[in-house]
Amino acid sequence: MQGLNWLSATQAAQGIRDGLFSAVDLVGACLAQIDAQEPQVHAWAYLDREYALAQAKKADEWRSQGNPLGPLHGVPVGIKDIIDTRDMPTEDGTPLHAGRRPWYDAKVVDLLRAAGAVILGKTVTTEMATYHPGKTCNPHNPAHTPGGSSSGSAAAVAAGMVPLAVGTQTNGSMIRPASFCGVHGFKPTRGTVSCRGILVQSELLDQPGFFARDVQDLALIAEVLAVYDADDEGMRPHAPVPFVRIAAEEPPMPPKLALIKTPWWDEVDAEVQEGFAELAQVLGSEQLNEFPLPSSANQALTWHQTLMEAGIASHFADEYDRGAAHMSDSLRQQIERGRQIKAVDYLASAARMLQITEALDDVFDQYDAIITPATASSAPLGLTSTGSPLFCTLWTYCGMPAISVPLLRTSNGMPVGVQLVGRVGDDARLLRTANWLMSAING
Amino acid sequence: MQGLNWLSATQAAQGIRDGLFSAVDLVGACLAQIDAQEPQVHAWAYLDREYALAQAKKADEWRSQGNPLGPLHGVPVGIKDIIDTRDMPTEDGTPLHAGRRPWYDAKVVDLLRAAGAVILGKTVTTEMATYHPGKTCNPHNPAHTPGGSSSGSAAAVAAGMVPLAVGTQTNGSMIRPASFCGVHGFKPTRGTVSCRGILVQSELLDQPGFFARDVQDLALIAEVLAVYDADDEGMRPHAPVPFVRIAAEEPPMPPKLALIKTPWWDEVDAEVQEGFAELAQVLGSEQLNEFPLPSSANQALTWHQTLMEAGIASHFADEYDRGAAHMSDSLRQQIERGRQIKAVDYLASAARMLQITEALDDVFDQYDAIITPATASSAPLGLTSTGSPLFCTLWTYCGMPAISVPLLRTSNGMPVGVQLVGRVGDDARLLRTANWLMSAING
Repeated sequence: MQGLNWLSATQAAQGIRDGLFSAVDLVGACLAQIDAQEPQVHAWAYLDREYALAQAKKADEWRSQGNPLGPLHGVPVGIKDIIDTRDMPTEDGTPLHAGRRPWYDAKVVDLLRAAGAVILGKTVTTEMATYHPGKTCNPHNPAHTPGGSSSGSAAAVAAGMVPLAVGTQTNGSMIRPASFCGVHGFKPTRGTVSCRGILVQSELLDQPGFFARDVQDLALIAEVLAVYDADDEGMRPHAPVPFVRIAAEEPPMPPKLALIKTPWWDEVDAEVQEGFAELAQVLGSEQLNEFPLPSSANQALTWHQTLMEAGIASHFADEYDRGAAHMSDSLRQQIERGRQIKAVDYLASAARMLQITEALDDVFDQYDAIITPATASSAPLGLTSTGSPLFCTLWTYCGMPAISVPLLRTSNGMPVGVQLVGRVGDDARLLRTANWLMSAING
Repeated sequence: MQGLNWLSATQAAQGIRDGLFSAVDLVGACLAQIDAQEPQVHAWAYLDREYALAQAKKADEWRSQGNPLGPLHGVPVGIKDIIDTRDMPTEDGTPLHAGRRPWYDAKVVDLLRAAGAVILGKTVTTEMATYHPGKTCNPHNPAHTPGGSSSGSAAAVAAGMVPLAVGTQTNGSMIRPASFCGVHGFKPTRGTVSCRGILVQSELLDQPGFFARDVQDLALIAEVLAVYDADDEGMRPHAPVPFVRIAAEEPPMPPKLALIKTPWWDEVDAEVQEGFAELAQVLGSEQLNEFPLPSSANQALTWHQTLMEAGIASHFADEYDRGAAHMSDSLRQQIERGRQIKAVDYLASAARMLQITEALDDVFDQYDAIITPATASSAPLGLTSTGSPLFCTLWTYCGMPAISVPLLRTSNGMPVGVQLVGRVGDDARLLRTANWLMSAING
């Protein structure tokens, strides 16, 4: 049963359903990989091997009793350690929350359990999902950052420890680690996945997302988790979307991609710029054209920072007041800046979200998706920073769906993601476009 | 056809449906009353008699063609002049918006038209629905304020100019003028009625409401307007509520009222205090008990002010920047205070809404409704102030449904409202309780 840990979640669920192997086999293979890799990668904040196997055993019993199986039956999933679990600690990457044991599962954990998933353990987050790194190293080279803040989730999937992991993004916390770790990362449209039971930085910006090793798996977990939650005030009701079917479909028309270099293109590493030039050549001008970013988007970075820092200052006020000494300088400074922000600037920054998103909407009248760097470079050397979120901020601010696919590699052997960004609400189509792109390049 | 203008909306709609009189008869009677009363009352910001009659004529034709009739078919309704109408100016009570002609109807106007109502005209608001008075006088004595900010809507209903009018409340703008003008005023649970197309002061506090001359009419218009609007982010989907049926029902158990005197009871006029003592005597201790306000509620006034002033500063920023000289001192000062508010204080004030509402929720385990003054006195003499919203602020902040019923009168002949406040979302039950109270006292 060697190598089960490298199966996709789709394959793994199918294999368990068909009786080719058991959930215990699969979880055992993942745990063996963790035993081998964790000393270098440090992806896990909490992992109870016996408890993981007990969940898998229960999944196998459930199947043997002839019960109907959920779409993730027996599939292990890693959960970022800012997402509440009723049976494991949730310590938010800060000593201030050491030993914290939530009473309830976050909505996403609840839905994963209902789909049959094994909640394998909690993955490392940066400090309260902000900039200060956790202990995780990049699986491709432990001297490099894995990116953050969903560091452990991205690294665990990249290292073959688990086929799926859940993370969150308030700035670049999904797309950046996906790029640096060479996995697929998907941050759906804001309001698609419930934030209930997840550490809040900003109720206007926080967006859960998923890591996997292919697009089909992103669709699989999206279909499980994109469920309306009336208790999340940021969600709107919507009909269920058949993500799996749509992502696998042949696009009815050959997709067209709008290459948006952004005003920050000069900061992109030469090798990444070359990678994009090659992509443009391979796809040709029928499939890819440059598209200028509307000038109104330039200020979005400032507005994003206003919302995020005011949010952090507000939501982490208790922690600051009782334990600023246990915070990193960067978090302390964020909070202190956030405390100075005026309510009128906060409200103006919030009001502009919709304006910018509408200004960007024109792109999608002509193009299936925006194509743009996920990060300006591959994972930087060193573990004191998780790298820059520069190429994620605008899309996060707008709440647009974004995917990082591992299509590039720099000469030092490190992966770099290509980011696809879709129209708000058009998540399934974005997955389909990403699937098409992977086939077009790799096929 | 004299006196048609004094019919309730329920009676008027029934009379038109049954062919006892026409919409033109009804609107004509209302216009005659306006001709007689408007020179003293000044309830209307805009009224085009010909256009009102043209709408009524169309309603009569519609009926004569055998079409199905809406619940307000042919019934004239007054609309506060901060609520957009595509066929009438909407000037928001400020010279800065003089001549403003919206392109679209507010959602409430749209729904009223769909229910067959005649949009009679636009009623006077205070300056941008804040404190500085408009031109309206109290119909019971023109030397007294009608209350604000929905001054014209309350006065028009009180003066028999129209059976129904729409207003809004961000602090005390429905309940206070209802109390001062001696009409029934109902502000439903926040998020029950769409705010789309209504001047925004604070997206967290603004709440549309209705004036009528009896409870049944409040239920009638609530049933028309309590419709989910996916484009109002403050609304949650809900099943339609049969307000009319529930409001008219005999309560299955004799209702119990919790008299909450509030920490501000000392400010209540002696005559109003006596009125409440009489009410307590008439109803007896089986039906009415004093209930202490949880201490946590005391700070709500400050939190409400933080949200409202930051909201006003944000939403009226353009007006301030280009025309502060055309603003009243009080509005200018509100904006200037609002500009100084910190985002963290704004967010903390917003976060506490739910906490306070939950703390107050215990009342409703034992009681059908809270009973408390609508205002500390009857309408004060003079037209330079619209009076104090003190007894409205807490319930508005919590988004709880509130009704003012005209049960008291001071020795100068001016009416005073008794306020009933219900559990969030229990609006129909609150109407039923109000109906029961009116019968218990008047019957």
